[in-house]
Amino acid sequence: MKMNAQPVRGTKDYLPQEVEIRDYIRSQIENVYQSFGFHKIATPIMEDIERLNKSDGGENLAMIFKLLKRGQKLDLSKENLAEDDLVDSGLRYDLTMPLSRYYANNSQFLNLPFKAIQIDKVFRAERPQKGRLREFFQCDIDIIGDNSIQAEMELIAATTSALNAIGFSDFTIRLNDRRILTDMILAAGFKNEDVAAVCIIFDKLDKIGLDGVRTELLERQYSTDIVEKFLDILSAAETDPLAAAEKFCTQSGVVTNLKYVLDFAQRISNGQFHVIYDKSLVRGMGYYTGMVFEIVSPKFGSSVAGGGRYDEMVGKFLGESVPAVGFSIGFERICSILLEEGFVPPRKEKIVLAYNDEDDFAEVIIKAQKLRAVGKIVTMLKRSKKFGKQLDALIANGATKMVNFSDDSQKNLG
Amino acid sequence: MKMNAQPVRGTKDYLPQEVEIRDYIRSQIENVYQSFGFHKIATPIMEDIERLNKSDGGENLAMIFKLLKRGQKLDLSKENLAEDDLVDSGLRYDLTMPLSRYYANNSQFLNLPFKAIQIDKVFRAERPQKGRLREFFQCDIDIIGDNSIQAEMELIAATTSALNAIGFSDFTIRLNDRRILTDMILAAGFKNEDVAAVCIIFDKLDKIGLDGVRTELLERQYSTDIVEKFLDILSAAETDPLAAAEKFCTQSGVVTNLKYVLDFAQRISNGQFHVIYDKSLVRGMGYYTGMVFEIVSPKFGSSVAGGGRYDEMVGKFLGESVPAVGFSIGFERICSILLEEGFVPPRKEKIVLAYNDEDDFAEVIIKAQKLRAVGKIVTMLKRSKKFGKQLDALIANGATKMVNFSDDSQKNLG
Repeated sequence: MKMNAQPVRGTKDYLPQEVEIRDYIRSQIENVYQSFGFHKIATPIMEDIERLNKSDGGENLAMIFKLLKRGQKLDLSKENLAEDDLVDSGLRYDLTMPLSRYYANNSQFLNLPFKAIQIDKVFRAERPQKGRLREFFQCDIDIIGDNSIQAEMELIAATTSALNAIGFSDFTIRLNDRRILTDMILAAGFKNEDVAAVCIIFDKLDKIGLDGVRTELLERQYSTDIVEKFLDILSAAETDPLAAAEKFCTQSGVVTNLKYVLDFAQRISNGQFHVIYDKSLVRGMGYYTGMVFEIVSPKFGSSVAGGGRYDEMVGKFLGESVPAVGFSIGFERICSILLEEGFVPPRKEKIVLAYNDEDDFAEVIIKAQKLRAVGKIVTMLKRSKKFGKQLDALIANGATKMVNFSDDSQKNLG
Repeated sequence: MKMNAQPVRGTKDYLPQEVEIRDYIRSQIENVYQSFGFHKIATPIMEDIERLNKSDGGENLAMIFKLLKRGQKLDLSKENLAEDDLVDSGLRYDLTMPLSRYYANNSQFLNLPFKAIQIDKVFRAERPQKGRLREFFQCDIDIIGDNSIQAEMELIAATTSALNAIGFSDFTIRLNDRRILTDMILAAGFKNEDVAAVCIIFDKLDKIGLDGVRTELLERQYSTDIVEKFLDILSAAETDPLAAAEKFCTQSGVVTNLKYVLDFAQRISNGQFHVIYDKSLVRGMGYYTGMVFEIVSPKFGSSVAGGGRYDEMVGKFLGESVPAVGFSIGFERICSILLEEGFVPPRKEKIVLAYNDEDDFAEVIIKAQKLRAVGKIVTMLKRSKKFGKQLDALIANGATKMVNFSDDSQKNLG
């Protein structure tokens, strides 16, 4: 009987040429991060369900894949079974919660500031749609234990260098600081406990415009006076956003640092990218506490990288406050763009070693080994009925030369 | 409140130096496989639960991690709930079943013979013990669509080359053919339907000896005559195993091919490894149909690689027979051995760029970028109270040179 061979809904198989592109992008990004002195770490995909449920994942918490308890721990005879009775672990939905746990679990072996690279799989039960998978890679760098603005600067330099290394330029970094935005919200008359909810609505500005933001804020029963004052503050900030930031921000140094980072990013850009202060940049995650950043480009459609400072999260596992800041590249989006563009990574020379059925295959392999020993990729190919079709496939895959086993004669391909 | 930071039972966090070794081993093995013209593929970790349950996984089927159904599919109000009501997918327990599914799902895009590399995570709910994890890597190569002995030869050449590339030599390849073993079992008088069960017991020969095999066979109620005849056949085969193989094997060509492969492996060994015919080699998996192989070494304790031909498995998804043969390296075992030996992979030059608090950090980054542009790994380090401790950690991590930001003076480290 023939069995269904489709992968599980929301997941996909990757063909060799896709894996080749993905591996290239990954290694280019890793090389740049490593050249900055960041270190790769690895954490398990499986995580404790209580830790996942209590983490700062926002709407991702509703998308956790949960693993059934095993053996005697699974008691199906209990009445009124709830999900919590059935599961004790789940699959990680991001790499930030595992990083926080990792740091707490291994801090005695790690020196501060600790600079981590993670390019690894995460899982979310998203509604399947084009370009959105349930099993996908995230690509994060984080600096733990540095409360200075230098950590943000290093992340910006590393991330923009990584994007340049894979051939992306002409993008824009948008910078903001949660503390400025918060002070603008408070200055309008919102209460402290409203800030998070207002941020979530304000985060949609790009999609729904100022009028949409007004409508949604009023729907949430905030007073018309406060909502209009907030929109006035934003409108007034249009002409000179940094002056407005200075006017409303109550914490010293925040705007000075923001200006310094803006100036720094400009200086390292070499015309490869732009940098702006964007007063309306929120970055969804509730855990950000300071500067936030995002990289956008017309080519990408939406953002291709984002991050910020989250000083309250790592400490949850340690029981003490630990500063942290992270920047994440949209690995899947970049791979999709390059795949659609027909991008071909740099390749080693690929050789076809053609032989006949009567040749001693042991000697064919020995000859191939000699070519491999000097760095060539060698595919051995028997002259059979399918030879022409197989050779075409190898040429499509980058083979550039054919060597005849019997007489060592060579021929260029393609 | 401080939260528990230990990874889930049976899983582990990897420190940067462990990831460095693992990445090095992985890239060395991948490079060798790619030089043979194998292609990396990637499949999802999540698999359909019915496919997993119906697969040829033997005892691994009892160790599958199962994922809870989601949304309306999960009905906890049903009476007499069984596990099957609660789950619709699970985590793959090996890479062979996903490869079979992958080939069936993508065969229109793949040319035969298809030579696949998979180095990826699998999950098994093993009883946690030293050196045995529930989330770990497997490292497989497979050739699909080649029913000739050349596929086995290419796998043997690639696997032994990969082991040599990571510094392993002085190992032994043990070869056997399931068909020879089967014919010996049948010649003793066992029935066709007993072969699998006898193989499972016989597979323990290394651990329990001939007497142990006798005891277990008799416990299974096989007749004393048959059991003793089987043991006689094995004893008689001690002096000249290949002659015994030829005497009992009923299929033409099987022993000739075995001899050819033995001779071939000898010829490519260059004194780096040994090769023997081992009449008692079973290799547990029930799906093997022809030649089986295993690599052992006193250094490893147990086997460090194994595989064989499995011509009936891939076809299950396609509805037609497809020959296949695979060889798997024990990635986790090799990483453990190298870690214990204190192995340090080759490293790029690592530089510390020392600066003072009053320096313009933007300029420090710009100077570091110039060094990175010529291939150096550069960690920027501020002269603070912790400077000495931080520098020691960087030296332990391979830093060999320090450059002073202010005056460009250099100093060798370590």
